[in-house]
Formats: sequence, C-alpha cells, structure tokens
Amino acid sequence: MSSVFSKDKVINKNNPMPLYYQLKEILLEYITNQHTDLDVPIPPEVEISAHFEISRPTVRQAINELVVEGYLFRVKGKGTFVSKSKINQSFLRELDSFNNEMREKGLHPSTKVLRATVINSDRKISEALQIPFGMEVIELRRLRFANDEPIVSVITYLPYEKCKAILSKDLENESLYQILQDECGYILKKAVRQLEASLVGEYEAELLRVERGAPIQYIKTITYLSDDTPIEYSLAKYRGDRNKFTFEIER
Amino acid sequence: MSSVFSKDKVINKNNPMPLYYQLKEILLEYITNQHTDLDVPIPPEVEISAHFEISRPTVRQAINELVVEGYLFRVKGKGTFVSKSKINQSFLRELDSFNNEMREKGLHPSTKVLRATVINSDRKISEALQIPFGMEVIELRRLRFANDEPIVSVITYLPYEKCKAILSKDLENESLYQILQDECGYILKKAVRQLEASLVGEYEAELLRVERGAPIQYIKTITYLSDDTPIEYSLAKYRGDRNKFTFEIER
Repeated sequence: MSSVFSKDKVINKNNPMPLYYQLKEILLEYITNQHTDLDVPIPPEVEISAHFEISRPTVRQAINELVVEGYLFRVKGKGTFVSKSKINQSFLRELDSFNNEMREKGLHPSTKVLRATVINSDRKISEALQIPFGMEVIELRRLRFANDEPIVSVITYLPYEKCKAILSKDLENESLYQILQDECGYILKKAVRQLEASLVGEYEAELLRVERGAPIQYIKTITYLSDDTPIEYSLAKYRGDRNKFTFEIER
Repeated sequence: MSSVFSKDKVINKNNPMPLYYQLKEILLEYITNQHTDLDVPIPPEVEISAHFEISRPTVRQAINELVVEGYLFRVKGKGTFVSKSKINQSFLRELDSFNNEMREKGLHPSTKVLRATVINSDRKISEALQIPFGMEVIELRRLRFANDEPIVSVITYLPYEKCKAILSKDLENESLYQILQDECGYILKKAVRQLEASLVGEYEAELLRVERGAPIQYIKTITYLSDDTPIEYSLAKYRGDRNKFTFEIER
C-alpha cells in the first residue's frame, strides 16, 4: 500500500512516550503541513493502523484527542476531515478595533449587541476603572462574528459619566473605539491585557456555537487614555478553535 | 441570615441571561475580590441558594463551571475552596529563561529532562528553523516546575550542528539560554510567539498532574539570533489553572 505518510515517520515501541502520543505528533505534522485539501478526509483508521503497525484503539485515541483539540472533525459516513486554520489575531500586538482587524484579514465582521445597560460598579470593575465602588458604569455585552461565524463574546465596562454618548449609538455598525474618539474626544493610548486559557461554560458555548468544555482564550483588557485614566475594562472569550495570537518580543 | 455577599448583588429573573450565569458572575467577583482566606470554604450551596432565592441545581451549575475553570475546588466532607491565584508569567513580554522568571517571582524552579535525542527534522521543524528537510536536530523534552508543582511541558528543537554542545550539559540545572550564550557564543535577539487555547490530552495531563481535558495555554516560539537565523523552535503547554500572561500594548 502506498501511503501519504513520510517513510521516516515511524512509531518506536522502545520509545518511553506512549504509542498514541507518538502517532498524535505524526498526524499533527501531517495535518498542518501536508494535508492541504480540506474537502478530502484523512486516511481511515484501518489504514493508519496498518501503516504504523499499531492497534485500532491506539489510532482512535490519537484521532480523538486531535478532534477534541479542534484540528480534526468527523462527518458521519464520510470520514475525518482537517479543520479550517485559525484566524491569526493581531489583538495582542495592536490596539485596533475588531472590525478593522477582521477586514484587514479579508473577513467580514459583524456584531450582535446582547445587552447595553447601566449598572453600579462592583469591586472588580471599580478597581479596573479606578472609580469608587458603586459608581454608574455602562455594561455592554457583544457577540462578534467573522463571516457569520461567532469568534468572540465580550463584556465591556465603561464609566457612565464619561461615555454615556455611546448608548445612543448603533453599536452593531459603529466601532466603539471610533465613537470614543470621534464623539467623546478621547485618545486611547495603551492597553494592558491579561490572558488565560479556560473552558467554555454552557451559556457561552451556546453563544459561540461550540461544545461545552471547549477551550477558550480568556482575555481581560484595561484600556487607558493619554493621561493614564482607564476608560475601558473588557472581558473577552475567544473561541480556541478559531483563533490564535501571534507577537514578537525583542530582547 | 447575615451574608458574605454584597446587598447590591442580586439575581434578576427578568434578565435574559440564564440565572446560573448571573450567579456565576457574582460568585466570580466574590472569589476574586472578597474571599481572601484560602483555608476557609465558600458558603455552602444551601446558603447561596437561600440568599439569592434560586434553586440548588442552579447554584450547583454555577459552582461546577467555576470548578471546571479552576477557580474553585471541592474537598470531600469539607466544602468548596478558592484556588491559589495563577502565576503571572512575563513570558510574553520578556525573552528570559524560565528559571530566572520563576526566581524573580519568589518561586523555586526545577526541571526534569524527559528526553534529549537527535532526530531528523520533519517539515514543521525544517520550516520553523529554516533548515533543509531531514537535517539532524536536537529534540529536548522537559517538564518544568515551580515549587515542585508542574507548570509547563515543553518540547524544544535546535539545529544539531550549531547546538550539539548542549547535549553534554546538565540541562536540569543549567539554563538552555545561558548555555547557548556562554558555551555556543550565540546572542539571542528576538522571539516570535504564537498562542492558542487548547485542552490537555491523556499523556500530558499525567505529566502536568491535571485532569484530561483541562485547559492549557499552547505557545509555539521561534527564537532568532542577531543575524535573524532561527536557533530554537519550541512548543510549550502551560497549565491553564496555574498560569496567566500579562502584557502591554502602546498605540
């Protein structure tokens, strides 16, 4: 049998790493570097099992983990396919609006406002925005899409007094940053972001159209004006299967 | 009943967000900002249920998700406790060794070398290190600890010809970056990092002492010398429950 796998990729039974894990690494390299046609399934389990001379359950375990991690997905009766590649977000390098960033990548952005209300700040919000406990803040809950696919669910808190102008704006079609600059006259200077890997709960899984327990990139941001006053505190949950974040560090 | 929860934190049955989700947000604020004694459990389900006038299953769902996300953990017969706070990694801001970074945070670093071998580069490694396919590379698999707790599992690829000196070194006690500089005479200039949120598979769950399916921060790095030659390609899996990453973006 001719195989799609390179001859130099073998599974070594004397290697202390589990067989399934060795296969997983081989498949991951194959998926990300060789299997370019997303309409063609990867070789079936039985073929992989024969090629590497390992059991079907071992093959299944490797494929299962790659499915859970979002690299592969199964279509009943058709086989196992390679997932679309993730969107390479510049979010960690640049202070730009979601809309601008998606457009630059050739994707069509859209936004659904789930909720825009005024609440009293709790400790967490007060600390982030450096305002007294219990002050009025705008709470904005938005779901943001690229080509009609949900990408990120974001909650944004803004001091009400300084930002009330945004409540009369069409936040599904106008950029928040643009409004803050053009309408409120604020100059955004810097953002401090904190990243955590997490799992999605039931409510947000539904919003983001992923399975409960799927991985998410949880990013908290405080955005500052030129005088170092915080103007925005946001909590964003990015779908792990559709986003990756790249940036550079100089020594 | 006097309660630990602020009076202004209420669950609104007319709010379109699910009740469990509203409670989850209240508990998260309580956990991260008010409940400072890690030896004391949070109030029991029955008390939370009575205080907010919601059902026990609703309380349980909120707590379950916070347990899965790593904010809380249960101790049989004792209650539900708040987890230690995550290590704030500077990994995304600075090009420094793991050992230095841990020490700066007052933590005791240690390293276990799982494997140090010479392999032939596959497409992925060749592309990252800009070397021909099939060239000899060092593959280093290490597990790194802070105060004896596993924090990150990392696989590092280095071009064999340029870096063979490291194979004779004690990589459990010497820093790889230090050896590359002092022994090989290389000056590390910059690193390009790519982040993804993912889940941990069986093998790595065991290494990192977390449940299978726990969230991880998956970070791929290519480190470059002053002449822009890649010298290191690494794949690091950071425990999501023990690490967070902070950095700043200027406009």
